[in-house]
Amino acid sequence: MELLKNYIGGKWLDSREAAFSSVVNPATQEILGRVPVGPGTSTDVDEAVKAAQVAFKEWSQIPVMQRVQPLYKLKQLIEDNLDDLANTITLECGKTKVESLGELQRAIENIEAACATPLLIQSEFSENIARGVDEFMIRQPLGVCACIAPFNFPGMIPFWFLPYAIACGNTFVLKPSEKVPLTMMKVFSLIEKIGLPAGVVSLVHGGKETVDALLDHPDIKAISFVGSTAIAKYVYSRGAANGKRVQAQGGAKNPVVILPDADLEVTSKVIADSVYGCAGQRCLAASTIISVGDEKGEIKDALYETAKQRTTGFGLLPDVEMGPVISRESKKRIESLIQQGIQEGGQVLLDGRNTQISGFEKGNFLRPTILENIPLNGELIKTEIFGPVMTLLSMKTVEDALAFINGNRYGNMACIFTTSGASARKFRSEANAGNIGVNIGVAAPMAQFPFSGWNESFFGDLHGQGRHAIEFFTQTKIVIERWPKEWSRKF
Amino acid sequence: MELLKNYIGGKWLDSREAAFSSVVNPATQEILGRVPVGPGTSTDVDEAVKAAQVAFKEWSQIPVMQRVQPLYKLKQLIEDNLDDLANTITLECGKTKVESLGELQRAIENIEAACATPLLIQSEFSENIARGVDEFMIRQPLGVCACIAPFNFPGMIPFWFLPYAIACGNTFVLKPSEKVPLTMMKVFSLIEKIGLPAGVVSLVHGGKETVDALLDHPDIKAISFVGSTAIAKYVYSRGAANGKRVQAQGGAKNPVVILPDADLEVTSKVIADSVYGCAGQRCLAASTIISVGDEKGEIKDALYETAKQRTTGFGLLPDVEMGPVISRESKKRIESLIQQGIQEGGQVLLDGRNTQISGFEKGNFLRPTILENIPLNGELIKTEIFGPVMTLLSMKTVEDALAFINGNRYGNMACIFTTSGASARKFRSEANAGNIGVNIGVAAPMAQFPFSGWNESFFGDLHGQGRHAIEFFTQTKIVIERWPKEWSRKF
Amino acid sequence: MELLKNYIGGKWLDSREAAFSSVVNPATQEILGRVPVGPGTSTDVDEAVKAAQVAFKEWSQIPVMQRVQPLYKLKQLIEDNLDDLANTITLECGKTKVESLGELQRAIENIEAACATPLLIQSEFSENIARGVDEFMIRQPLGVCACIAPFNFPGMIPFWFLPYAIACGNTFVLKPSEKVPLTMMKVFSLIEKIGLPAGVVSLVHGGKETVDALLDHPDIKAISFVGSTAIAKYVYSRGAANGKRVQAQGGAKNPVVILPDADLEVTSKVIADSVYGCAGQRCLAASTIISVGDEKGEIKDALYETAKQRTTGFGLLPDVEMGPVISRESKKRIESLIQQGIQEGGQVLLDGRNTQISGFEKGNFLRPTILENIPLNGELIKTEIFGPVMTLLSMKTVEDALAFINGNRYGNMACIFTTSGASARKFRSEANAGNIGVNIGVAAPMAQFPFSGWNESFFGDLHGQGRHAIEFFTQTKIVIERWPKEWSRKF
Amino acid sequence: MELLKNYIGGKWLDSREAAFSSVVNPATQEILGRVPVGPGTSTDVDEAVKAAQVAFKEWSQIPVMQRVQPLYKLKQLIEDNLDDLANTITLECGKTKVESLGELQRAIENIEAACATPLLIQSEFSENIARGVDEFMIRQPLGVCACIAPFNFPGMIPFWFLPYAIACGNTFVLKPSEKVPLTMMKVFSLIEKIGLPAGVVSLVHGGKETVDALLDHPDIKAISFVGSTAIAKYVYSRGAANGKRVQAQGGAKNPVVILPDADLEVTSKVIADSVYGCAGQRCLAASTIISVGDEKGEIKDALYETAKQRTTGFGLLPDVEMGPVISRESKKRIESLIQQGIQEGGQVLLDGRNTQISGFEKGNFLRPTILENIPLNGELIKTEIFGPVMTLLSMKTVEDALAFINGNRYGNMACIFTTSGASARKFRSEANAGNIGVNIGVAAPMAQFPFSGWNESFFGDLHGQGRHAIEFFTQTKIVIERWPKEWSRKF
Repeated sequence: MELLKNYIGGKWLDSREAAFSSVVNPATQEILGRVPVGPGTSTDVDEAVKAAQVAFKEWSQIPVMQRVQPLYKLKQLIEDNLDDLANTITLECGKTKVESLGELQRAIENIEAACATPLLIQSEFSENIARGVDEFMIRQPLGVCACIAPFNFPGMIPFWFLPYAIACGNTFVLKPSEKVPLTMMKVFSLIEKIGLPAGVVSLVHGGKETVDALLDHPDIKAISFVGSTAIAKYVYSRGAANGKRVQAQGGAKNPVVILPDADLEVTSKVIADSVYGCAGQRCLAASTIISVGDEKGEIKDALYETAKQRTTGFGLLPDVEMGPVISRESKKRIESLIQQGIQEGGQVLLDGRNTQISGFEKGNFLRPTILENIPLNGELIKTEIFGPVMTLLSMKTVEDALAFINGNRYGNMACIFTTSGASARKFRSEANAGNIGVNIGVAAPMAQFPFSGWNESFFGDLHGQGRHAIEFFTQTKIVIERWPKEWSRKF
Repeated sequence: MELLKNYIGGKWLDSREAAFSSVVNPATQEILGRVPVGPGTSTDVDEAVKAAQVAFKEWSQIPVMQRVQPLYKLKQLIEDNLDDLANTITLECGKTKVESLGELQRAIENIEAACATPLLIQSEFSENIARGVDEFMIRQPLGVCACIAPFNFPGMIPFWFLPYAIACGNTFVLKPSEKVPLTMMKVFSLIEKIGLPAGVVSLVHGGKETVDALLDHPDIKAISFVGSTAIAKYVYSRGAANGKRVQAQGGAKNPVVILPDADLEVTSKVIADSVYGCAGQRCLAASTIISVGDEKGEIKDALYETAKQRTTGFGLLPDVEMGPVISRESKKRIESLIQQGIQEGGQVLLDGRNTQISGFEKGNFLRPTILENIPLNGELIKTEIFGPVMTLLSMKTVEDALAFINGNRYGNMACIFTTSGASARKFRSEANAGNIGVNIGVAAPMAQFPFSGWNESFFGDLHGQGRHAIEFFTQTKIVIERWPKEWSRKF
Repeated sequence: MELLKNYIGGKWLDSREAAFSSVVNPATQEILGRVPVGPGTSTDVDEAVKAAQVAFKEWSQIPVMQRVQPLYKLKQLIEDNLDDLANTITLECGKTKVESLGELQRAIENIEAACATPLLIQSEFSENIARGVDEFMIRQPLGVCACIAPFNFPGMIPFWFLPYAIACGNTFVLKPSEKVPLTMMKVFSLIEKIGLPAGVVSLVHGGKETVDALLDHPDIKAISFVGSTAIAKYVYSRGAANGKRVQAQGGAKNPVVILPDADLEVTSKVIADSVYGCAGQRCLAASTIISVGDEKGEIKDALYETAKQRTTGFGLLPDVEMGPVISRESKKRIESLIQQGIQEGGQVLLDGRNTQISGFEKGNFLRPTILENIPLNGELIKTEIFGPVMTLLSMKTVEDALAFINGNRYGNMACIFTTSGASARKFRSEANAGNIGVNIGVAAPMAQFPFSGWNESFFGDLHGQGRHAIEFFTQTKIVIERWPKEWSRKF
Repeated sequence: MELLKNYIGGKWLDSREAAFSSVVNPATQEILGRVPVGPGTSTDVDEAVKAAQVAFKEWSQIPVMQRVQPLYKLKQLIEDNLDDLANTITLECGKTKVESLGELQRAIENIEAACATPLLIQSEFSENIARGVDEFMIRQPLGVCACIAPFNFPGMIPFWFLPYAIACGNTFVLKPSEKVPLTMMKVFSLIEKIGLPAGVVSLVHGGKETVDALLDHPDIKAISFVGSTAIAKYVYSRGAANGKRVQAQGGAKNPVVILPDADLEVTSKVIADSVYGCAGQRCLAASTIISVGDEKGEIKDALYETAKQRTTGFGLLPDVEMGPVISRESKKRIESLIQQGIQEGGQVLLDGRNTQISGFEKGNFLRPTILENIPLNGELIKTEIFGPVMTLLSMKTVEDALAFINGNRYGNMACIFTTSGASARKFRSEANAGNIGVNIGVAAPMAQFPFSGWNESFFGDLHGQGRHAIEFFTQTKIVIERWPKEWSRKF
C-alpha cells in the first residue's frame, strides 16, 4: 500500500516525507491507506504554496463569472458520485451512510452558495461624494489561503471555505486530517475534472508539522481551521503572530433545554439524533440535556427509551443508526471520561461501554450512554466528551438553565424545546451561543449563513460559509476618484 | 404542418384557437411552423392561469433551496443543447449563429443569477425594536406572473424574468412572440425534464388578443413586458388599471458619442457591432453616432470602412456577420425611413437598400446603411428605426452632445468613446439613460444588475434581472412579534 | 381669516384660487382656517413644479452627505416643537394628544432613517466582469416627485416619502389633505429654517383638481399617495397612464385573531387600542376581531369591558382616550354602517352612536361600538368603516380564520394573539397581508422597513419608508466601463 | 497642575497612578497638563472594565433606535463646540486650525454613519428553509470593547470605533494617547451631557502599562488599535493570544505616481497638501512621489515650488499651513532620517531642517523637505518618516512604478495622478494598497466605507468605520426555529 500522494500544481506528487501514519477503518481496524506525516511535509507545503502563488497571478484576473463555472461542475460531479463518496466517508470515519450522505449534502449547499459569488463579491459605489469625486469599494482576493480540516466531517468542512476562497480569486491549500484523508482524495479526483488551472487548489497531507508549516509560511495570507479549542487557540495565536488573518473554530459542550410543554415524542427523537449522531463526534452535538420542571420524569424516560433503542454497528449496514468512534484512543478516552463522571458523583443511567458488535469485534464502538446527577461543579460538566454520551441535568426554571449555559466557556450551540413562543424568544435572545436551535437538535446554519461559534468555540471574527466567507477571503480596496468636470477634454 | 401546441399544466395541448399565423425564416421565407393567433387564445390563457394557480399553492411552500434545483439542471441542459437552440434562433429570427449563441449565454447568466435566490430573497431581521418585540421582513411570492416577450431575442428575454419568478415561488405563464415561437418550444422541451411540478411554468401562443387576455386576467398578479414604447405604455396603463404590478420595457434611439481622443480602430469596430449586430433590431443597438470635433473626418472614414466591409447573409453560414430583418414589412418600413431621412435633408453615405443575397433572393436583407446630415429637428432623429441604419451626426463639444442626448424621449442606452477619465465620468454622470457604456458599444447589464431603461424606454420602477427581479416577483411582508419575557412559561 | 398660503420656491405665496373650504376642529366645529380648493390650484401646482424643476438641477448635484444635513436639523426642530405640533394635529384632526405625539415620533423615525441615505443610496460595483471591464450601478434622483396625503395622519404620512425623496436628490411637492392642512403649515415653517435651497420642497393646498393636476403634470416623475382604495386605484391608473411611477396605498379591513391561549388582559387592552385608537380612522386599525374557540365567552367579555371603559372626548383634555371622527359626514356614514350591520343580521353589543360629550356637544363623537354576529356574506363584512367600530366574529379553528382572512380584498394588516410559537408561525406565514402582528395590535413597520400593504390595500410595488423609499425615489443607472490595460498611457 | 482624571462609570475619578508625563504644546513646549502613566493605570483599566461590564447588562437590552439617540446629540454638541475642540487639538497636537477642523468633520461623519446602526445591524431572515423551519441571524453586541488611540488624530480616530461600538450595544473603554489626552477630555465633557448611562463609555489615561492591561484583561472582548506597525503587530499578536478579536492599524510609506498627462497645477498642490499636511504625521500622508516620464523635470519643478511656498508656524495663527511635529524626539528622528538618506546617496532638493520660527523658537518645527535620488535598495526607501519629507523618485513607466509599489511592505494608500481613464483603472486594479486615490492626495475613506489598510498597514480583517465596524462590534447569532404547522394549537 503506497503512501497517499499530494495534489500540487495540478499533479499527483509523492510527498517529500517517507514516514507515515495509517488510515484505519474504525469499525474493523482494517488499514485503508498510508498517509505521509512528518517534518518532510513542510517541503510539500512549500511546494504547494509556490504553485498556488504562481496560479494566483492569473486566477485572480479571471472574471468571477468564469471562476464559478468549475463550481457548477463540481456540484454536478459530487451529485453524480454521492454513493461512492459517502461510502468512503463511512469507511474511514465510521459514521453511518445516511450521515455521510447528509454531510455531502451540506458540502453541495456550500458549493451552491459560492456559485453566488458574482453577487456576493459586489461592493458599494457612491457617486459624487464631493463635486466630481466618486468613491467605491472593490473586494480583491488575498493570495494563497489554507485550510486545516478535522477528522469528523471529511467531506463537508473543507467546503465551508474552499469554494468561496477560489470563487473570490484566491488559490487554496487544503490539509485534510491524517485520520481521514481518503474522502478528499476522491473529491480531488473530481476536482481534477472541473477545469481549474493548475495550482488553484492543492492537497497536502500531514500532521502537526504540516500544520506549523502552514501557520508559519510567509506567503499564506489566511488560515481556516476547525478542530478542538486547544488547537484552535494555538492556531489563532500563532497565525496572528505571523500577521495572518485567521478563523479558528474550536470545540463545544452544547446544552439543550427541554421545557415541560415540549412535544415529547419529537423532542426525544430529535435530541437522540443530536447526541448520538456521528457517535457524538461533532461540534454541534447536543451534550448536556437540561430538563426543566420534569417532575414526573417523563422527559428522562423518553430520552432513555430513544437512546436505548438506537442500533450501533458498521455504518454501511442498513438499519445501523450509529457507527464507531474514530479511534481506539478516542474510545478509551470516552470510557475514562464516563468513569470520571461516576467518580465525580454521577450515575450511569444507560451504559454504552464495553460494547461488542458481532462481526466487528475490533471496532471502536460504544453504545449510547446517559450520565445523570453529575455535579455542576465537577470537571466533566465542562469537558467536551466527543462521544455518544448524554449528560442529563434537571433544573427548575429556564432562568436556572440560562445561568448555567451562560457560564459555559464554549458557545457553539444552545437549543430549547418548547411550544411557547415567549420561552423560545427569551432563550434565543439570552443564550450565549452562536447557533441557536428552537425545537431543533443540530442547529447547523445553512450555507447562506455564517457558522457562528462564540466564546472559546471560535477565535477570530469572520466565520465560515456565506457572506462571512466572502469577506474573509477578500480584502477591501477603497477607491476615491476625482475627475473634475473641467478636466473633461475640450476639442 | 400542425399548429404549435401550448404547454399548460405540464402537458402539450392544442390551442382552443384554430386560426394561425405563419412562422417564417426571414432569410428564405420558408414557413417553419404555424402558431395559433386569435380570440380563442384567451381561453388558452385562462387554462394556463388556472393550472398556474393550482400549482402555486404547493410550489410556493417548497423551500427555496429546492426550488432552484431545477434551474441548475436547466443551465446544464441549455449548455448541452446550445447548438440546436442557436440554430433555431437563427432560423426563425434571422440573426447570425454567433449572435444566437451570445444571446443564449445571457440566458444562462440569468439562470445562474436566479440560482442565487436563496441569498437574494433573504430579508431583514431586527431584534428588540422595543423590549420583547422583534420585527422582520419576509419576501413571499405573488402568485401567477406573466411575461409577454418580443421577437428580437427569442432565447434570452424570457430569462430576464422566468427563472427569478419561479425561484421566488411564483408560477409563470409565458407568451413568446408569434413571430419566433419555436425557440421557446425547444426550451420548454428542456424545461419538461428539469423536474418542475406541472403548472409551474406554462407556454401560451398568440397575438394581441392573448396579450389583452393576460393584461385583464384577474388572477395574474404581475406582468413583464418587452417591446416597443407604444405597446409598453399600453401594457403599463392597462395592467395598472387592472391593479397589477407591471414592468414594461419599450424602445430606444441610442446615442453614441465619439471623442477625438478615442482609440479609432477599436471604436469603429465596436460601434459597427452595435449598430449592425442583430441587423439593428435590438433595444441596445447604437443608432445615432455623434462624432465630436472630428475635423479631419477620421472618425467618419473609419465608421464607413467598417460598415462597408460587413458581410450580410444567411445567419447559419460561416463568416456571415449580419442576417436579415425579421419580416418583409419590417424591411419596407426601414427602407421608407431611410427615404424619409433623405427627404428631410439627409444624405446617404452608405446605402444598404435593394440588397440581394445570392441564393437567398427572397430574404429580408438590408446592408449596413449610413445616413448623415439629418437635421436635428427632423422626425427621423426621434424615430426608432430598428434596422441596420447608422445616423451620423457631428457636433463640436461634449456639452452639445449631452444636450442633444438629454432631449431624447428615450433613455435606454448612451455610450461614449474616449480615453479621458474626466470626459467619461462627466458623460456617465450626466447622460439621461439607464445603461451607459464607456468604450462599450452594447451596454447590456450582466444578470446581476437590473436592465435599467429610463424615460420612455421603461414604464414601472423595478426592472428585469438580478435584485430588481427578486423584488418585483415578491411582496414584502413585515412581521412584528411581541413575546414579552414575562410570558415565558413558568413551571 | 385669510386663505392658507402655499409654500412654493422658498416663499409663502397666495393661491391662484379664491374659492376655499374650511378647516374645522372636529371636536367643536370651530373654523381653524380656510384652505384654497378649486381649479385655480392647478396653476399653483404648475408653479410649484416649475420651481422644483429649477431647484432639481442644482440640488441633485449636491453630495448626498450634505443633502441629509437639513434632515438632522429638522429632527431637532420637530423635537423642540413637539408640543405645539401635537396640539395642532389634535385640533384639526381630533385624535388625542398622546396619539398626536406618537404620530410625530413616527415622523421623526422616518427622518432618522432618511439620514442614512448616504449608506442606502450606495449601489453595487463589480470589478473585472471581463478583462479590463468594470460594471457598476448608480442610483440617481428622478426629478420632481409629489405626495398626496390623507387626513388621518397629518404629521406622519408625508414623512414616509418627503425625507427620502429629497435626500436622494429629488425635489418634492406636497399636497396635504384640505381637511388638515395646518400641521404641514407648521412643519413647513420649520422646514424654512433648515437650510434647504428654494424649490426643493413645496407645499400646495387643494382638493380633487389639485390631485388631478399633480397626476397629469408632465414634469412630475413619481406620485406617492395614501388614502382610500377607490382613490388609490384611480391614482395608480391615472398616474400610470401618464407614464409615471406610482405608489398608492389604499384602505383596509384588518382582521385580528385571538386564540384561547392568549394572555387575555394584555390582548384585550392592545386590541382596544388598535380598534379605537385615532377613533378607528387609520389603515392599521383592527376592525374584525375573530375569537377562536371562545366557548365560555371570556374573550368577548374582556373586549366588552375594555371598550366600555374607554373615555371619549376632546383630544387635548387629559385622560381622554378617544377623540371625535374627522367630520359630520364621517360620523353619519359610520352610524349608517352600524345600522346596516344591524339590518344585515348583526347585533350591537356596545352602541357608541348618539354620543354627546358635555362641553363639546357639536363634536363628531362616537363611543366605542361592538357589533357581533354579522353574517359572513353580508356587505358590512367587506366594508371599511373607518370609525371606532369593532366587528366581533367567532370561529372554531385557526384554519377557519385564515380562510376568512385570505378571502378579504384588502391586505394591509392581520394580527394574531396567542402564546403558541407554532400558531404564530403558521399565521404569519399564511395570512395574506403585508403587515403582520403577533401579540401586536397595530403592526406599523418601523421606518427601517417598508410599509407593506398587499392586495387592494396597495397599488404599485415599492412601498413607503426605508429601502423601498430609496429605490422608489431613485432610478438605477448601469455603467459598463472598458479601460483595456493596453490603453494605459505609454510615455 | 493636577493630573488629568479618568472618566469611569459616569464619574471623573483620580487615577490610582501618581506618576505622570506632561502634555506639551509642540509649538512652544508649554506644559498643558499632566497625564497619569505607570503600572497603577492597570487598576484604572480594571475599574473601567468593571463599570463597563455592569453597564453592558442593561445597555445591550435597550432598543437600538434608542441607543443611537445620544449620538444625534453628540453630533450637535460637537458642531456647537467646533472651535473650542479644534483649538485644543492644535494646542496639544500642533496641526493647523484648518486641519483640526477637518479632523473633527471626519469625527462627525462617523457619528452620522453610526446613527444608521438600526439599519446596518439588521441581519438576514430566511423563511421556510425546510417545511415549518425558519432561519435567521441576529447581530448581538460583544460586551466590553476597548480602543487604544494614537497621537496624530486626537479628535478623529476614537470615532472610527466608539460610536459604532456603543450603537451596537457594547460598552467602551478608550485610552487616548498620553501625548494628546486633552481633546478627548473635552469630548468626554460633551459625552457627559448626551444621556448615556454610567459605564457605557469610559476614558482611561496611560501609556504602555495601560495598553498591556487592556490587551490582557479577560473581560475585554475586542481591541481597536491605531499606531505604528511594530506596535500594531504586537497588539494583534498579544490580543489574539488572549483570544480577543483585534483590528490593528499600523504605519505606511505611501507612494504617489504622477504621469506626464496629469494636470500639473492641481497635482502639485494636492500632493503638497498630502505630504506636508499634519506635518506628514498621518498614515495617509503621501511619502514617496514617483514621477513617470518626467523628462523635462516639469513635475519636479512644480513640486519644488509648491513645497517651498508652504508657510510653517504655530497652528492657531492665520495663514499658517504647517505646524510643528509632535515632539523634540520626533524632530530629531526625522532630521536623522534625512541625514541617513543623504548618507545612502540621496540629495536634498529642499532642506527643512534647522527651522526657526520667530516667536516660537522652542517649537518642534521642520520645513518642507524634498529628498531625491534615494537608491531603491536603501533603507530609507522602506522607512516611515512621519514628518514633512517627500522622497522624490523618477521612473520610466507605470509598470516600473507598480512593481516598486507592490514590493512595499505596507499597503495603506497608493495614488495616481493622470487624465487617462485606462491608466487610472490599471493602477487602482493592480496597486497593492487598501486605499487608492485617483487624482486624490489623501485617500481617506468616508465613514460609510471601511478604512482599508493592507499588508503590514493592518492586522486583522474587519476595519474601522461603516459596515466593517458594525460587523466587528457584533457577533452573529444564527437561530433555526422549527414550528411545525401540526403543532399549531387545536382548540
